Amino acid sequence: MQDGTRLVNAGKLREYCGLLFRKAGVPKDEADINADNLVEADLAGVESHGVTRMGIYLKRLRVGATNPVMEVKTVADAPGTAVIDACNSMGAVSSRHAMQVAIEKAKNVGVSFVSLRNSNHNGMAAYYTKMALEHNMIGFSATNSASRTAPWGSRVALLGTNPFSWAIPAGKELPIVADMASCVVARGKIQLAQKKNVPIPPGWALTKDGDETTDPTAALSGCVLPFGGPKGSGIATIVEVLTGILAGSAFSTHIRDMYADFDGPIYVSQYFGAIDVAVFEPVAEFKAKVDELITIIKTSPKAKGVNEVFLPGEIEARTRRERLDKGIPLSTLTLDELRREGEAYGVPYTLA
Amino acid sequence: MQDGTRLVNAGKLREYCGLLFRKAGVPKDEADINADNLVEADLAGVESHGVTRMGIYLKRLRVGATNPVMEVKTVADAPGTAVIDACNSMGAVSSRHAMQVAIEKAKNVGVSFVSLRNSNHNGMAAYYTKMALEHNMIGFSATNSASRTAPWGSRVALLGTNPFSWAIPAGKELPIVADMASCVVARGKIQLAQKKNVPIPPGWALTKDGDETTDPTAALSGCVLPFGGPKGSGIATIVEVLTGILAGSAFSTHIRDMYADFDGPIYVSQYFGAIDVAVFEPVAEFKAKVDELITIIKTSPKAKGVNEVFLPGEIEARTRRERLDKGIPLSTLTLDELRREGEAYGVPYTLA
Repeated sequence: MQDGTRLVNAGKLREYCGLLFRKAGVPKDEADINADNLVEADLAGVESHGVTRMGIYLKRLRVGATNPVMEVKTVADAPGTAVIDACNSMGAVSSRHAMQVAIEKAKNVGVSFVSLRNSNHNGMAAYYTKMALEHNMIGFSATNSASRTAPWGSRVALLGTNPFSWAIPAGKELPIVADMASCVVARGKIQLAQKKNVPIPPGWALTKDGDETTDPTAALSGCVLPFGGPKGSGIATIVEVLTGILAGSAFSTHIRDMYADFDGPIYVSQYFGAIDVAVFEPVAEFKAKVDELITIIKTSPKAKGVNEVFLPGEIEARTRRERLDKGIPLSTLTLDELRREGEAYGVPYTLA
Repeated sequence: MQDGTRLVNAGKLREYCGLLFRKAGVPKDEADINADNLVEADLAGVESHGVTRMGIYLKRLRVGATNPVMEVKTVADAPGTAVIDACNSMGAVSSRHAMQVAIEKAKNVGVSFVSLRNSNHNGMAAYYTKMALEHNMIGFSATNSASRTAPWGSRVALLGTNPFSWAIPAGKELPIVADMASCVVARGKIQLAQKKNVPIPPGWALTKDGDETTDPTAALSGCVLPFGGPKGSGIATIVEVLTGILAGSAFSTHIRDMYADFDGPIYVSQYFGAIDVAVFEPVAEFKAKVDELITIIKTSPKAKGVNEVFLPGEIEARTRRERLDKGIPLSTLTLDELRREGEAYGVPYTLA
């Protein structure tokens, strides 16, 4: 355990955050989903999408920038597709609804693609794609975001971090769950380097003048680079179209910043889809082959300096098991913030 | 024009290659598609998927390893999906058929996902995704291949180069057409470095012992690395599942090598899909927004040392225009090979 962190029980954390959301006007079942979404990210070791977001979520609810009670309107519909207006509801509840619609549609026609417009920050994308697994489906999803990434060759942040996720059911093995941003690195990691006063690796970011930099402060006033150069830039561009543009909503610099724009919606969009394995081949055969692929990769000779080869989502699943058992390490900074929110809303602090 | 290359007219090249395919037993309309597929890659500047492949395509036809006459069987079908058995037909004709099925299904239900099993090398993936554009649809496709890429952390080639493509219709602007391998670099580029006796950049490949190398010869006996490290490795893994495993066919090291295994099929699989823009929003609005995104990116301030910011597919479209006008630069090596094939099949050489 690092200095300045404390282990917190996941159940207690979920309950405490749920109570805070309820105090901010969110109905109980929706408050539970919002809390679960954040705690699942912390359990998976994806702290950047965990309860560290409570402060901004609550602030947006408090000032009326986000709709506390879920409203969803289907604005376009076909057997395999839909456009759903999230009506500025919380990201996790409207996203969960849209993924459920995607799963139902895939049951009917084999594949689906559902656009969600006028949504909000929805946390870890894998939270939704994993919903497909119990239906023996492959799930996929992505979200746009306020512009943070420079297209390859540009020095201006014109594309979101645009994370995307795929979840694939396995048999005896863990499911394959990929979840990655289209940029090299989360902005949060650059902020952390700034706090620790250490340089960032080359290739992460540009200064506002378009120079490569290893100085976190210069990077934060510039932009993050796409991963894999032009390839990640291409992926971020595709995600920008498949989310905001296809949803008939905002894209690129038209998307507003949840940390800066408090006078209304941020016009974030997501897509959710599912592929029903059973219409392609018997589910047991599919799962046996996925297991075999996992075994081939896991047991392969390792590159120099590597102790273990991991499948996508494996480290997160292992971290989740450990943290369910031992607790989630939260920084005192995050815990102080949660305590203060509790004081403001009259929720007794139970995380000490 | 480089030393050892000659400019060849695209129409003449298409005709000549079509004649060679016909002599190898391919019906005229299918021969034309196979030739067009290769010539379009050369026009786009994607030489690695161009007529340099004629030799291996003809050899496989000659020894009976590939079925010269297209046969396709639908082995599973749902409103938005299908599994099609290509019956070891040529990759381009069976892939074109599968993409047409995907477009028809998307017309009916809004989105589609069609698996093609027992297929063959199908050239440039964008050749198929671009078919969606005239229907105001977004096209997507990927293929697996003989194992060439090491999963992140492994030192063994267990995943294909697994290229994937997306094509997005625009209005006044060029369509956005992304087409990329899941590995850092095409193996062909390492072969070229070996021929030129120059080192390859770090990060491209590992030796067979798992060490990083800049020696092209050591790299060719080792494996190529995924692009963007664990991210590209995750993408290659997802493509491996969505192609071969979902198609109920071969995957990873079970896929055979078209350059080494001549006693039958190589069991390559592809997927093809389409998203019908019109069921999401009015097509004109969608296209206007795509145009605006393109303009935002094209006119943005450039990073240091960059002369122009390019959208995915823009360089290829520009190269295509130039080469349609001036001719395709082909190496004397490739031209000699084409001439010899003509001599063997009794096709007069018209590319001099």
